[in-house]
Amino acid sequence: MRNKGPRGGSRDSGRGENRGGNPDLTHVRLWGIHAVEAALGNPLRKIKRLRITENARQRLAAALEARGVQPEVVNARDFDRDPGADVVHQGVLLDTELLPDIDPRDFAPGPKRNDLVIVLDQVTDPHNVGAILRSAAAFGARGLVMTARNSPPLEGTLAKAASGGLELVPVSVVPNLSRALEQLAEAGYFRIGLDGQGEGPLEDQKITGPTVLVLGAEDTGMRRLTRENCDVACRISTFGGLASLNVSNAAAVAMHAVAMGRRASTG
Amino acid sequence: MRNKGPRGGSRDSGRGENRGGNPDLTHVRLWGIHAVEAALGNPLRKIKRLRITENARQRLAAALEARGVQPEVVNARDFDRDPGADVVHQGVLLDTELLPDIDPRDFAPGPKRNDLVIVLDQVTDPHNVGAILRSAAAFGARGLVMTARNSPPLEGTLAKAASGGLELVPVSVVPNLSRALEQLAEAGYFRIGLDGQGEGPLEDQKITGPTVLVLGAEDTGMRRLTRENCDVACRISTFGGLASLNVSNAAAVAMHAVAMGRRASTG
Repeated sequence: MRNKGPRGGSRDSGRGENRGGNPDLTHVRLWGIHAVEAALGNPLRKIKRLRITENARQRLAAALEARGVQPEVVNARDFDRDPGADVVHQGVLLDTELLPDIDPRDFAPGPKRNDLVIVLDQVTDPHNVGAILRSAAAFGARGLVMTARNSPPLEGTLAKAASGGLELVPVSVVPNLSRALEQLAEAGYFRIGLDGQGEGPLEDQKITGPTVLVLGAEDTGMRRLTRENCDVACRISTFGGLASLNVSNAAAVAMHAVAMGRRASTG
Repeated sequence: MRNKGPRGGSRDSGRGENRGGNPDLTHVRLWGIHAVEAALGNPLRKIKRLRITENARQRLAAALEARGVQPEVVNARDFDRDPGADVVHQGVLLDTELLPDIDPRDFAPGPKRNDLVIVLDQVTDPHNVGAILRSAAAFGARGLVMTARNSPPLEGTLAKAASGGLELVPVSVVPNLSRALEQLAEAGYFRIGLDGQGEGPLEDQKITGPTVLVLGAEDTGMRRLTRENCDVACRISTFGGLASLNVSNAAAVAMHAVAMGRRASTG
């Protein structure tokens, strides 16, 4: 991987919005049992400070032992006094750093040429991006690319919604999404944009080689330039009174359709 | 429909948790542009009080005219003083009532026998249930059944996440889910439970007649008795490092798979 180091280019985004005056721009906080369990299992994830209730410590005993880390066991009420803590912390707060930056060119297809990369064009809701990372991990995606602007920070709420997916799917935060889409095409990817007004149904696409799925913002969809940098714009076949799905639901359906399409074409 | 009236059996649930001392148990509040637009278009939805900013009034002009309702145009700051208002109201707050109760037996299959009913066993998060209603509307589901216990209220956050789906998909709130599943089987439905440990892949199921998809709670899945009241337990084929999807993502994938399975079997 081309690690840009802790102050690399796209590092200016994808980080915490509300830093409480903390000048360390790489500092992020994770919470939630599944998110922290996965973080403990990720050797790239630094452990700066880990606070945990006795109850959560028992649930995470195996992961703590495997990582060889001694957490600060605290009272549940101590969390509630911490201004950075959230009601959904599930008894565990991990102070850590952003994972190393990576570049879209690091997603070069492997020898099986069945790679899948997810590209998000200004999807803003951390629950949505987190759920998309969770699905991307479940469907074995090679990586996720998102815009530096109007994307949620790679921590807290997003990480909890990803339920461990943030540790499994490399995320590339880019200042110029069109450039990233060009780089993915140069690497051999076929780029499918998802769009309610798309030219044809996603289900009719023959999916064979390395594939990129592009999803746009919750309300407005892909930007024009993003759409122009796709090889095709497709819609998901729906049948009822509403034309559009929630963006994370659309992403999951599309990833599943790509996986099924591959299965069909390889017999 | 078997309307149970405003105080009917299952009415004790699926309603607001935080009523601010309001003794009217059928009173609910909706917010968000898409949710209120769909409510205005639903003749079953009573309009008790509608407050709106000038900006939102312009966005909803067509729906307001079609319904023939005169809203109270208010200042955006007035919303922020209302303790029931949420940060995501988008300039519109509708005071209304729960829709009429319906019974699972009202979901009897139609002549095409391609009906789909979604059953939720204690899915608690309003964003998840809302997104599932949105997908259910997009895939033309006949209705949704949910448990009276441990389900979110049919208003506010859920309605906004449903983006209009709450007005399009009839919701039956039941005290006894096993009984509801029996009634659906008696009506001719084949009941597929979704379960990470399911017997076979959902994608290999032949989907022909009326179909029920059952999804369980976010962390614990279906309860034992719920699973026993399914005809088969299936898993969604995943391929990566995480076995499970977010419940609304799993629901969307399953609804799409059922729709595609029907398309394949009817040629």
